[in-house]
Amino acid sequence: MTDIERINELTEKYFTAENKKEIENELKELILPDSIGLAQINTKAGDIEYNSKKIIKYINFAQNIRLNFVIFPELVLTGFPLENSIENHPIIADEGIKWLNEIAKITTKTTALVGFVEHDGGKFYDSVAVLQEGKITDIIRKSILPQNCEFNDYNCITPSQTSNVIVINGIKYQILIGEDYNINQNADVIINICATPTKIKNIQLENNLLSSVASKYSVPLIYVNQVGATDRASFDGTSRVFDKDGKLIACAKSFEEQFLIVNPSKSLGKIYPSEILSAKTEKQFSLDYEADMKRTYKTLIQGIKDYFGKTGFKRAVLGLSGGLDSTVCAVLLTDALGKENVFGISMPSKITSQTSKDDAQVLAQNLGIGFTVAPIKDMFDTTNNCLQNLFSEVEKHFDNRYKQSFTADNIQARSRAMFLWGVSNEFGSCLPIATSDKSEAYMGYATINGDMSGGFAPIADITKTKLFALAKWLNKNRTQKDVIPQSVIEKRPGAELAIDPKTGKPLIAEDALMPYEFLDEVIWRIENKKENYHDMQKSEFLYEKNHSLLKEQKTQWLDKFYHRMSTALYKKLIMPPYVIVDSPSYNSKQPITSCGINYKGVTKEKIEQKIQQWS
Amino acid sequence: MTDIERINELTEKYFTAENKKEIENELKELILPDSIGLAQINTKAGDIEYNSKKIIKYINFAQNIRLNFVIFPELVLTGFPLENSIENHPIIADEGIKWLNEIAKITTKTTALVGFVEHDGGKFYDSVAVLQEGKITDIIRKSILPQNCEFNDYNCITPSQTSNVIVINGIKYQILIGEDYNINQNADVIINICATPTKIKNIQLENNLLSSVASKYSVPLIYVNQVGATDRASFDGTSRVFDKDGKLIACAKSFEEQFLIVNPSKSLGKIYPSEILSAKTEKQFSLDYEADMKRTYKTLIQGIKDYFGKTGFKRAVLGLSGGLDSTVCAVLLTDALGKENVFGISMPSKITSQTSKDDAQVLAQNLGIGFTVAPIKDMFDTTNNCLQNLFSEVEKHFDNRYKQSFTADNIQARSRAMFLWGVSNEFGSCLPIATSDKSEAYMGYATINGDMSGGFAPIADITKTKLFALAKWLNKNRTQKDVIPQSVIEKRPGAELAIDPKTGKPLIAEDALMPYEFLDEVIWRIENKKENYHDMQKSEFLYEKNHSLLKEQKTQWLDKFYHRMSTALYKKLIMPPYVIVDSPSYNSKQPITSCGINYKGVTKEKIEQKIQQWS
Repeated sequence: MTDIERINELTEKYFTAENKKEIENELKELILPDSIGLAQINTKAGDIEYNSKKIIKYINFAQNIRLNFVIFPELVLTGFPLENSIENHPIIADEGIKWLNEIAKITTKTTALVGFVEHDGGKFYDSVAVLQEGKITDIIRKSILPQNCEFNDYNCITPSQTSNVIVINGIKYQILIGEDYNINQNADVIINICATPTKIKNIQLENNLLSSVASKYSVPLIYVNQVGATDRASFDGTSRVFDKDGKLIACAKSFEEQFLIVNPSKSLGKIYPSEILSAKTEKQFSLDYEADMKRTYKTLIQGIKDYFGKTGFKRAVLGLSGGLDSTVCAVLLTDALGKENVFGISMPSKITSQTSKDDAQVLAQNLGIGFTVAPIKDMFDTTNNCLQNLFSEVEKHFDNRYKQSFTADNIQARSRAMFLWGVSNEFGSCLPIATSDKSEAYMGYATINGDMSGGFAPIADITKTKLFALAKWLNKNRTQKDVIPQSVIEKRPGAELAIDPKTGKPLIAEDALMPYEFLDEVIWRIENKKENYHDMQKSEFLYEKNHSLLKEQKTQWLDKFYHRMSTALYKKLIMPPYVIVDSPSYNSKQPITSCGINYKGVTKEKIEQKIQQWS
Repeated sequence: MTDIERINELTEKYFTAENKKEIENELKELILPDSIGLAQINTKAGDIEYNSKKIIKYINFAQNIRLNFVIFPELVLTGFPLENSIENHPIIADEGIKWLNEIAKITTKTTALVGFVEHDGGKFYDSVAVLQEGKITDIIRKSILPQNCEFNDYNCITPSQTSNVIVINGIKYQILIGEDYNINQNADVIINICATPTKIKNIQLENNLLSSVASKYSVPLIYVNQVGATDRASFDGTSRVFDKDGKLIACAKSFEEQFLIVNPSKSLGKIYPSEILSAKTEKQFSLDYEADMKRTYKTLIQGIKDYFGKTGFKRAVLGLSGGLDSTVCAVLLTDALGKENVFGISMPSKITSQTSKDDAQVLAQNLGIGFTVAPIKDMFDTTNNCLQNLFSEVEKHFDNRYKQSFTADNIQARSRAMFLWGVSNEFGSCLPIATSDKSEAYMGYATINGDMSGGFAPIADITKTKLFALAKWLNKNRTQKDVIPQSVIEKRPGAELAIDPKTGKPLIAEDALMPYEFLDEVIWRIENKKENYHDMQKSEFLYEKNHSLLKEQKTQWLDKFYHRMSTALYKKLIMPPYVIVDSPSYNSKQPITSCGINYKGVTKEKIEQKIQQWS
């Protein structure tokens, strides 16, 4: 084991160790001059006291082990993203500055770079304070703001050019905040202080960019990133150091708060295995999600943990239907919150099959979570009766009563949500879970105030085919193997809300929608390749390679996709919070009243014809 | 009546008239050279065929009456806002261009300025096409994009400098798109093509700005604005012309699609009465909302009409509790959709008072809307029984069961929503209505899947004290007077979900929260003056002028406000769509996990103490 490996091993142990003094002494011996601590920390948005406590913890540690330089991520004091919070409540920035002044006083033996929102002369800046000698000695402002930032934070931030080079022990460090790449050719080391959310597509790009900046200017580059989730936004940490040739010499863990000690001047560091750097995305749609499973799992677990932890909830209650969605949710919640904090309820109706009931129970047993059975018959019957009486009254005033409606289907889903929200109301710190997945969310194949209702929606950004892969991966890779019954993975998904008149059996989702293999590729092509209706007509789908598919059938599915997507915009708006795993953007929106968009378009001839007709 | 008045009177009649030819002939006689048509139109976001049809209608009219210049608002062809639609589906822009080329062909006798999204070389521009002589003769691009636009549309738009002066009949017109104010000193007339959403605070400002630009450069200024609502965003139209001294010489109606004919060169125009120009906001909080009532009412009616119309819904079902919120919603829905399209349901529980039941029925009778009574007793009893059984099972696994919970209250609100969503599922084109108001939304004083659930929330941006004023105004100003029973306006609001143990009567909302007069001023001070906790401690509230208020009581209310606001962030996220009336921003957001923000802050001494304690 090299010294730098030993240093990081000891650092990892330190915060939970009994023998802190002993570790400090050993570290003092081992640490070379000009070593730097990268404090990759998980903050709470806007909770300055919470964030300050963490910052102080790491500054004190640095000083105790005679490390004279420690770097925190961008906006670490206030947290990021805060969306419009600072704009609406400037006191958050002012409180941050009050805390910063006091934190500065403890930095008697170290230099700390602390990101914060500067509030000066009515303007806000995205700044980094240099704390040393017991005071704030310098402030560096972000001079170039991100174009089209997905978060609203920059609505109130002013770009501003300041000197951004500081000298410590004769070494010139240039400090760059976020994507503000104005390289000073005389710097000895570049420090890039960031809060970059994880996006699988950007990971390789970002890594290559950092490496190429280092090699282009022939200077070591330190990248310090935030870790943790804030609602939809997930930060993976993975702070890194590149040497002057652009070679990776140190890398912190992904999805974990870590204090990584490096020495860029001597090219010393430790590369921790990272779910981020090992993740790969395919250049074309594939059902082989293997290379992205670890990142997916960690993103989901961090997303759940942080949402519950940061909002003060600790327990979850969910319906266990015996289907794939609720099953995967139960496993993820168990891993994120602990089995003692998860309660599953099987809520069968007369349509629910015995296999589904059995699968729900076996899963709960395997996981060791709380479990009970609560049939919905009584609620369904009462509600249905009341509604039938009501409908006959409404019919006197409203025409156009459907001959076949989804009313009965929805009463079932809503009765179940009534149970879950009831438990949440009755027991402390408990959130009900919405189990909708991404494929269904696109299709609006979920019931309002029913299965899509909840305090959190763990898998709302995971498509169905990826969920199948995740279920298999969980069975293989968790310490406890095969918790998910094989039949859950094998059966064809369906809501079990209605009987298919053709088969006399519960309706299968793929029969109501289209094959998930096809549906998920449509979503993938829109999100990743921005393909449109006509592009997709021309593209060869994986489904077409695996099955024979008539052109008419493909057209029908594409038409159905766009039609359903257009009418599901409202459901997207009221979707409970979830963490983004695969979507290319965090805050992408579309007005509900834009449901009239014709994604197919019309021909020039048709336009001419219409214009003539209107004239 | 002057000629220009007669011209506009005829134009108003034209589109529904039988004797179109006759009107055209009279107009041809009256219209002077260099007159201009301002086509203030209401578009559907992304629905290019719908928008094109309107554009063509007005171009054809202009040509029929030998008007040789017609101007449409910014981005009229594609609609605005489209948020991320163009970015995700570039085909929308491409379709727009296809239509534009065909529309150009009809412009043989007029020049039309049509805003559209230009898509060229992989980039998007916010552009205006000059259509004349049967083709696109010029394209002007927006060169300065709005800083911190609240909508995501500009995420994909590139700013670009183009020549922006066109000459028609020897007159030099400079075309400015939105806030792109680069005045060319040689222009004879400035044309400002906009899509500016309504904000009461900005109205006077904007009007003054337009006037001062005209007078500063001593040139007439034409401002053409969009009208209509797109989800939250409301556009009021109110297109205007100022003469070279900055004097208003023409003004189109507010909240109505209109084709206004003006002659800036000869300073001829007609000023229609406008709810926008007559609206006033107080510089301090007041319960006198009179001067803003017309604007408020028109914004709400347009918001409801356009949301329903543009999504293809035409009917609404709502619960009538006999309270203020549902009462005002019922009146607004009746005015926006027609009484035949509104159905009110009284859903009493054992807590519901006889007055409430009577008031609901009287209101429905007065309005002539559909009405029935559907007691919730059976659903409540069944659900409550089922839940009690479930809770005894959950209790075996989860501790911390509340001794006093909101479970029973919420079952009532959720049973009612079950009825409303049932009607929506069973009858075509029918949306259930969420009746939450803004004061309650801030306080989270509404039930998830209950009264805050619905397809649309008409009054979610109106505070309670303003709703009282609106109720009185409606009674006085609608053609049919006094539809709202006096007792609704007089009684103190309460959800009638629980009995106050102190009084033995239904709990009053102000006892659970704080006086609405105080609460609404807190909201007003945050939104309009960005005041914080400490500012408000110091400010004298209207409530303090009208009542004696102990400092301790004020502190307690402020503490309660910030606490409740912090824990209501989730409810804000899943709020159904509504139109913005008073909020200063359209897309203001705050992460739910920012619930730990300390809006009071701590003292310097306290910080020092904490830091010492942690070290």
